This record gives sequence, C-alpha cells and structure tokens, in this order.
Amino acid sequence: MTALDFWFEFGSTYSYLSSARVAAVASAVKVELRWQPFLLGPLFREFGWDDSPFNLYPVKGRYMWRDMQRLCQGYGLPFRKPSAFPRNGLLAARVCCVGAGERWLPAFVNAVFEANFGHDLEIADPAVIRGLLDGLGQSGKAILDEAARDPAKQCLRDQTDRARDLGIFGAPSFVVGTELYWGNDRLGDAIACAATGGLG
Amino acid sequence: MTALDFWFEFGSTYSYLSSARVAAVASAVKVELRWQPFLLGPLFREFGWDDSPFNLYPVKGRYMWRDMQRLCQGYGLPFRKPSAFPRNGLLAARVCCVGAGERWLPAFVNAVFEANFGHDLEIADPAVIRGLLDGLGQSGKAILDEAARDPAKQCLRDQTDRARDLGIFGAPSFVVGTELYWGNDRLGDAIACAATGGLG
Repeated sequence: MTALDFWFEFGSTYSYLSSARVAAVASAVKVELRWQPFLLGPLFREFGWDDSPFNLYPVKGRYMWRDMQRLCQGYGLPFRKPSAFPRNGLLAARVCCVGAGERWLPAFVNAVFEANFGHDLEIADPAVIRGLLDGLGQSGKAILDEAARDPAKQCLRDQTDRARDLGIFGAPSFVVGTELYWGNDRLGDAIACAATGGLG
Repeated sequence: MTALDFWFEFGSTYSYLSSARVAAVASAVKVELRWQPFLLGPLFREFGWDDSPFNLYPVKGRYMWRDMQRLCQGYGLPFRKPSAFPRNGLLAARVCCVGAGERWLPAFVNAVFEANFGHDLEIADPAVIRGLLDGLGQSGKAILDEAARDPAKQCLRDQTDRARDLGIFGAPSFVVGTELYWGNDRLGDAIACAATGGLG
C-alpha cells in the first residue's frame, strides 16, 4: 500500500473532475490520499505560455469545453462554462496550505472547484472563498488572514517547486512512489498502482 | 448505429495504442469502423510547432515515454522506444489512401505502427513499407508505385484538410456523427457513442 498524492490546480478544468471523485475511489481501496495544491502558471511560463493552452490554441479549447460537458454529464457533476478562464486559484491554494491535514480541506477543495466550474463564481474573490469556508462551519475570516501571511505564501511556492521537481507539467497529476500519472483519465491507473503497492 | 471514424497518424505514439485495439472493440459492438489516415505535421505547424510537442517540451516527452511503456504493458503490446521520433508517416499514409476499402488495410496500419513503436523500424523507408505489404500477401512494389502518383498524394492532402475542418488537432481522434473524441483514452467513449447511435 502506497499513498496517492493528488496534485491539483484550481484553474484546471480536469482537476475538477478528479477532485470530485478521488476521495471516494481512494477510500474504496483504502489508499491514503494526500491533497497537494500547486500553481500551474509558473510551470506554464517555463514553456513560454502566458495563458492556458486552451486559450492559446482555440481549437483545443473548443474541444476541451465539449469534452468537459460530456464528462460532467457522465459523472453527474454540475457544469457551467465559466465566464472567465482560467480563474486565478492563488488565494484558494494558499487556503489549502493553511488547511493542510484539517478535516475541512477535502470539502473546501471540492467547493472551490464546484464554485468555479459548476456555478461560474469568481474564486479569486476573497468574499467567495470566505463564504465557502464559512459554509463549511469554519471561520473564513481567520483562515483568510492566515492565508495572507508569509508561511502560507511560502508553503505554496514550495509546493509548486516540488511539483516541478516531480516532473509535473499539468493538472491534475497523481504521484504514487516514483510513478507519475497525468490527467483525470489516469486516476484509475494511479489508484490501482497505489492499491497494489506501486509499480516498483 | 453510427459509423466510427478513426483518425490516425503514423508518427503518433498514442495512435498505435488505439490502432491495435479499435477493430476488436468496434466489431464487438457491431460498429462500422472507417480508417482515416492524415498528417499531423501541417496542423501542428499552424500552432507554430515545427516538431512534436513531446520534443518541444521535454518534460512532457519524458512522461509520455513512461506512459507508453506502462500502457503497452497493460495492453500486451510490443514496445520499444524508437531511436527516431517522430518518424515521417507520409509514405505509409499515402499507401493507406491506395488501400482505402481493401481488406489488407487494417493489418497494414497495425503493421506500420508495430514496426515503428514495437520494433524501431524506419517507416519512412520504402523498403520497410514494401516489406510489410509483401508480408501481407500484397504486391508491395505495385502499391508503392501507386502511392507515388498524384491521386494518392491528393487523397492524403484532402484527408488532412478534412481533419482540420472537423476540428481535429491531435491523434488519435475519433469522430461519431458530430462528436469529436481526442486521444486513446477516449476510444471507449467514442465506441459507446457510436454503439448507441450518437449523442445527437
């Protein structure tokens, strides 16, 4: 049995699909799940991309939105094409750093994704994030205060550096031992690898 | 029941994975399969890419080769990382135009992919392609002669134009009615869509 690291970025459409499913499938096979927020922007900039590839290459973008629509329908997930894409997930990712190990973290991650891709809410707006935290019975104000401090900022920078060091170049990504899996389509393979103790 | 168009490019690793499986899965659900060769190069050049993205972005390339290794193992397909990538599939694709509707076409397509990704053979070499055709009981020389004539060249240009018009931007791609599916990971969804008569 090996832990599964789930690397996600709140601006990423396909991360939404995995976030909504990963806890249930990991739990079903008793795999330990670790939530790993990071930012894709700094990694994309190293490719010379100053925007999502789905915006840089419109033909890929048109396909992706149709693909999302079909997949959300298949998974039974709410989907509404966001009026802004990609939204900036910096604040929400810092909140995840504050919430590392907390019981509310998984529900918060899912709430942020659903706000962005299910309800077209601006997740870069502190009021939206605070509302989600409050809705989970937490003190949104206190958590946002902590997310604005240096330790949370440094934690997220470190997470993004770790992602780069792991060879991550997109989201979602899954890491099991030394194996990297990229994309929502690899969730099943990653889980199977973790459940059987890794590919070694 | 709607036909499934399978769009493939001989230089594409993930097209190999689908080519090896698509006939069996289509036949199992009695879906009519249409083999659609095209060239990715002209479409990539419109993105400003003069090479495979797996070469332009080495971190993606490293991941792709490991992913291929794992997937070929899972599917029970021979795999050897080719010493040249991507190989030029122009000649083999023109041969497919010559072989449209012929009974040897599916076996030829699979043989070319396996030569490239299973045995590290240079599929741009006419002697290799001729050998594959001869091995299928065909007259390799006569078919190569025909592949060098204008109708075959024009057929392949038309195929690539059709691919662009369909919104195709990568390989493999599957088209069922008005639905486009990109990638080996979508073979199952495309087949399901075709088997149920399209998403309409």
